[in-house]
Amino acid sequence: MGKEIAEQPAALARLLAEGAAPITQVARRLARIRPRFVLLASRGTSGHAALYAKYLMEVQAGLPGGLASPSAMTTYGSRPAMDDVLFVGVSQSGRSPDLVESVTVARQAGATTLAVTNDPSSPLAHAAAWHVDILAGPERAVAATKTYTAQLLALWLLTRAMAGLDTRPACALPEAAALALAPGPAVGLAAGRLGDAKRLVVTSRGYSYPTAREAALKLMETSYVSAQAFSTAELQHGPMAVVDGGVPVVAIVPEGRGGLAMAPVLARLARAGAPVLTVGPGSPGAIARADLPVPAGLPEDLAPIVEILPLQQLALNLALARGADPDRPRRLRKVTETR
Amino acid sequence: MGKEIAEQPAALARLLAEGAAPITQVARRLARIRPRFVLLASRGTSGHAALYAKYLMEVQAGLPGGLASPSAMTTYGSRPAMDDVLFVGVSQSGRSPDLVESVTVARQAGATTLAVTNDPSSPLAHAAAWHVDILAGPERAVAATKTYTAQLLALWLLTRAMAGLDTRPACALPEAAALALAPGPAVGLAAGRLGDAKRLVVTSRGYSYPTAREAALKLMETSYVSAQAFSTAELQHGPMAVVDGGVPVVAIVPEGRGGLAMAPVLARLARAGAPVLTVGPGSPGAIARADLPVPAGLPEDLAPIVEILPLQQLALNLALARGADPDRPRRLRKVTETR
Repeated sequence: MGKEIAEQPAALARLLAEGAAPITQVARRLARIRPRFVLLASRGTSGHAALYAKYLMEVQAGLPGGLASPSAMTTYGSRPAMDDVLFVGVSQSGRSPDLVESVTVARQAGATTLAVTNDPSSPLAHAAAWHVDILAGPERAVAATKTYTAQLLALWLLTRAMAGLDTRPACALPEAAALALAPGPAVGLAAGRLGDAKRLVVTSRGYSYPTAREAALKLMETSYVSAQAFSTAELQHGPMAVVDGGVPVVAIVPEGRGGLAMAPVLARLARAGAPVLTVGPGSPGAIARADLPVPAGLPEDLAPIVEILPLQQLALNLALARGADPDRPRRLRKVTETR
Repeated sequence: MGKEIAEQPAALARLLAEGAAPITQVARRLARIRPRFVLLASRGTSGHAALYAKYLMEVQAGLPGGLASPSAMTTYGSRPAMDDVLFVGVSQSGRSPDLVESVTVARQAGATTLAVTNDPSSPLAHAAAWHVDILAGPERAVAATKTYTAQLLALWLLTRAMAGLDTRPACALPEAAALALAPGPAVGLAAGRLGDAKRLVVTSRGYSYPTAREAALKLMETSYVSAQAFSTAELQHGPMAVVDGGVPVVAIVPEGRGGLAMAPVLARLARAGAPVLTVGPGSPGAIARADLPVPAGLPEDLAPIVEILPLQQLALNLALARGADPDRPRRLRKVTETR
């Protein structure tokens, strides 16, 4: 897991160098089809990349959309009318049968189908009309890391190209990722502050909400912590009651509008006595300096590709500190086949 | 909270007697507009009713759809093209500013807008072109109970009428609800089995997955437990690692396809040593008799309206046993205003 975390700056650079052109080609063909609605089907880590893409597609490409529930099609046999729908299956392995079936059904129902995978020879890639290869190279640790950030970047490149927007801001990513991963005392200190907490809350807003979801999953998978992720808005509609001095909060505070919207909630969390651990570049009006700092100056929509990195390191560090094997978490396999 | 839980059979009967006709009228007008996609915006408990409606709309009305992220519109100013979209705001109070703004923006962007609330004079009801009143009567406890089941039934009636399907199966609900709420030792025994657990997992599949989400929220709001809800499929893509002898699992096992799909996962949970507490009518092939039984024989799509009831009682019972005030949970107010 540690090796794959460290590979990410190179994997992002490779995707920019070799993947951007084919992704742009696919995006232009998709744009010509003029889908009017996007549905994304996925599970686990890939589900967080899909959630990120949902924000991107809506805000940047003007396409309303949602996350598909595969069970509606696979368990209940729903066959909704899918003309004008772009149906995207996101999966590292491309092998979960329920996703393959969802894409197959969506294609029969008239959707334009796209698979985003790390394996062009996978069943999911074959089931979809179009394919985007995230070019992350083989991933062996059960906890996905480099395939997650590669999925985010591939989906960002795809959306930007579909919307006819500049993709050059992504060139800053490999260096920013390397800086975010640079060795330093921050990760160890942060793990120490979590102590032996068995439950915690992870929160963020907007583009960075998928980061909160993914960080919580990494902490669950590797360290067996009951890590609950909530958007900072959703947190106030109930889950806030759980927070107290014994429940640390990990807050991902992006620059820009998302971070500003979080500021009043961070103040409430502090008043509730929760130990708050912040992640981000420091955001004027919200936090001065984060406990897990990442480079400043990235556009808010690219920040998720970098801000997850120290959180992956945190999950790894915590797992090792607690005597778990992050490469072989209990009860999990690399390829999960759900139906 | 206890009083409002007990009111539910009467509230469901009232909605069937007085609400079904106006809901059918709205549904017929909506069906004539022929929306092609559904988006639902909501927070907290209402978000779980919206998730239930997403399954219903897709499986029964053939309408693909998703859950809207209000922040895309309110924080990032997205203005997606919404012709042919049915945009539904679901909220007990109808007062959260981000939902009112989302519905307003969706309406400007060309969507057909519908508000489902417990207050026809609320800002959300005014913002939408159409309104469905769930007729639950005033709800004072912070933890929503009777407005949740009324939302489910209103959305079921709406979807069935839009799809031109029979709504008579709902007539069985008031009696089934009364049976599910009948006093007996099961709830106390179940609370006892949870002991002083501070974290637990709630899981189900398909139509009953929103029940798992809502049960987890009730347990968080009233008893401050870190209750994590996962669909039984999603559970296998990572969170399964959290489960062990110290993390009880509450499994809602419906009759029919959802329950059958859960059976192999229930066996895996038992092998992991987790104390598993089951809720449902007993489902051939999955479980013989549930720890929290509910009446058998309801169609699977109506079961969520009944199976949440003993879970509301469980949350209330656990809160009182732990010395919390379920009517005034810490850090929460009845109407939450997020922006």
